[in-house]
Amino acid sequence: MNDTERTFSPGLKGVVAGETALAKVDGENGRLQYRGYPIGELVERGSFARVAELLWTGEWVGDAHLACAAPLDEAIEVLRRLPRSVSAMDALRTAVSTWGAVTGSLWPPTVEQARALTSFAPSALAAFARLRDGLDPIEPDPSLGLAEGFLYQLRGERPEPAAARALDAYFIVGAEHGFNASTFAARVIISTHSDIASAVAGAIGALKGPWHGGAPAEVVDQLHQMGSVDQAEAWIRATLQRGERLMGFGHRVYRAYDPRAAALRSVAESQAGVTDWLDKAVAVEEIALRVLAEFKPDYPIKTNVEYYAAAVLQGVGLAPNLFPATFALARHAGWTAHCLEQAEANVLIRPDVRYVGPAERSLPA
Amino acid sequence: MNDTERTFSPGLKGVVAGETALAKVDGENGRLQYRGYPIGELVERGSFARVAELLWTGEWVGDAHLACAAPLDEAIEVLRRLPRSVSAMDALRTAVSTWGAVTGSLWPPTVEQARALTSFAPSALAAFARLRDGLDPIEPDPSLGLAEGFLYQLRGERPEPAAARALDAYFIVGAEHGFNASTFAARVIISTHSDIASAVAGAIGALKGPWHGGAPAEVVDQLHQMGSVDQAEAWIRATLQRGERLMGFGHRVYRAYDPRAAALRSVAESQAGVTDWLDKAVAVEEIALRVLAEFKPDYPIKTNVEYYAAAVLQGVGLAPNLFPATFALARHAGWTAHCLEQAEANVLIRPDVRYVGPAERSLPA
Repeated sequence: MNDTERTFSPGLKGVVAGETALAKVDGENGRLQYRGYPIGELVERGSFARVAELLWTGEWVGDAHLACAAPLDEAIEVLRRLPRSVSAMDALRTAVSTWGAVTGSLWPPTVEQARALTSFAPSALAAFARLRDGLDPIEPDPSLGLAEGFLYQLRGERPEPAAARALDAYFIVGAEHGFNASTFAARVIISTHSDIASAVAGAIGALKGPWHGGAPAEVVDQLHQMGSVDQAEAWIRATLQRGERLMGFGHRVYRAYDPRAAALRSVAESQAGVTDWLDKAVAVEEIALRVLAEFKPDYPIKTNVEYYAAAVLQGVGLAPNLFPATFALARHAGWTAHCLEQAEANVLIRPDVRYVGPAERSLPA
Repeated sequence: MNDTERTFSPGLKGVVAGETALAKVDGENGRLQYRGYPIGELVERGSFARVAELLWTGEWVGDAHLACAAPLDEAIEVLRRLPRSVSAMDALRTAVSTWGAVTGSLWPPTVEQARALTSFAPSALAAFARLRDGLDPIEPDPSLGLAEGFLYQLRGERPEPAAARALDAYFIVGAEHGFNASTFAARVIISTHSDIASAVAGAIGALKGPWHGGAPAEVVDQLHQMGSVDQAEAWIRATLQRGERLMGFGHRVYRAYDPRAAALRSVAESQAGVTDWLDKAVAVEEIALRVLAEFKPDYPIKTNVEYYAAAVLQGVGLAPNLFPATFALARHAGWTAHCLEQAEANVLIRPDVRYVGPAERSLPA
């Protein structure tokens, strides 16, 4: 077989690189399902623990609990050794790598490993955030769920139920989204019969890149910049007139309203306690959609998940420099579920490459 | 475009996922070139430093020096925190992740970053190996090249010139080999505009998997098991009769003699000081090829790089549990060169996936 007979796609666009039973992403119709269940129902009636179990095992269990795990002593000690200026994503990647080293996790990946690693990550990130601020890490409270426990370990006090519920909903909508660069990196790595921590550390590395998409911190920036709701329309018009992008609107896949944004908006609207940011976000969204429709009448641009993710993350009091790593905590469920699925498929992912360098030659004399 | 119009390849076999000007792998004819220069010439007339510069910059420089860098204090402290039982690959992945965290390397990757990371890795691995043995790490000697410096930092004394030359040759043949799962993982990660350390940490994770290929430690095992050269033929016959594989022979790509094995054999033959293992390897190879030809007359199985890699690595005195990580040190040159090449191409690697899960359904009541 020579090159001309083969598919050539440097970005693998249009190449179907595998099968999944985890998420169905229907961008045209603005729908997202995990194992067939619509994301809106999962957020309304589920918890992150139940959703993670669904992704890992395929079963919708009556009840499930997933608490933050005490990070390994070694991981805490490793985090202590990093300078305070380190980025949260670099710290999380290093903590996950340490977890893999200390636990010695090996092929094949198991549901137990998936649970353990997903429970470890929020404790590690909370420990990092406290150490960075000169504070001691806090032991996890095993009675709390993952989102609530993460907020507890960040602050040393239990969050308002509304904040815990909003962050849990964010964890659900962030848990899984088919193939993307980080998930694909995890699958390439585990496909060599490597271990789950190697795969997730690689995935965190890929998620770090700005091209991966997802920048709720920039939404927060813009909401800050535009000032009050009264001033929003003028600010939005000026931004679009300069040809700049309005963050939190438009999505590569979703042509219709992003179903994750809808689910988060609905949780946030029904909760007290995260309302300041939410009130503003809801009011600004209406203005933004109206102005966007006016500027781009032929290409409908709808709200994406980042928009309400920003409202939730800011609403529960997270520092914007923790947003990407907090997203990574949620996506641990999906990454590890993909590791399990790739292990079942059991095929090495190894594409070909076209050589375009110099013809054979001799070294200069 | 629906699935039936698209390429479906779960392992991406036959899919050309990019272009490279780094290595040309011609398995049919048993040839390998870096930027057009045959691997045999590069080993004969080059050094790992010159070859790495060639991969990074495309230029064959008159002279080049690449010394081991002092590992960052933070990386040493992190390595100190890992239990002694940790695998060398896990330790190296964690050290590289720490390097990325502390240096804060960002997109785009640069030749300076490639040099710095490639120089860091051997020092970190040597430090890990000493700490594991209860010894203090040794500061690098900047006058030594990377292979020689690595052996020096392992032992605290300069190696025999023959050992340094043999390991340098091994580093050259291990530096680069087109797309494979680890290199591809690095390119997927950097393609999101992430950083070079994230990409290399992911690549180390992929290289860890036994399916990545490459197991010189198993060759050493077999050479031990077969006893003396006199006993080799009986042992090989018994092994093949049981339907077991002879390690160090046969290769997925190379149908002809692996050019890397030829280059290593020729260096090893011309050097004193690594001869014990080499004498045995050369003698056993002839027996093995003769017996293999008898067992599989229609399918010629030739010596692969692992065979002479084993002879070199064992010959220079490395512990077999350091073999995979030592291979990773060499491959840092290729991985980082691929990061530079992928940054030039500047396209996000993001394949599609086919959903095969349940149809839309409601949660149980």
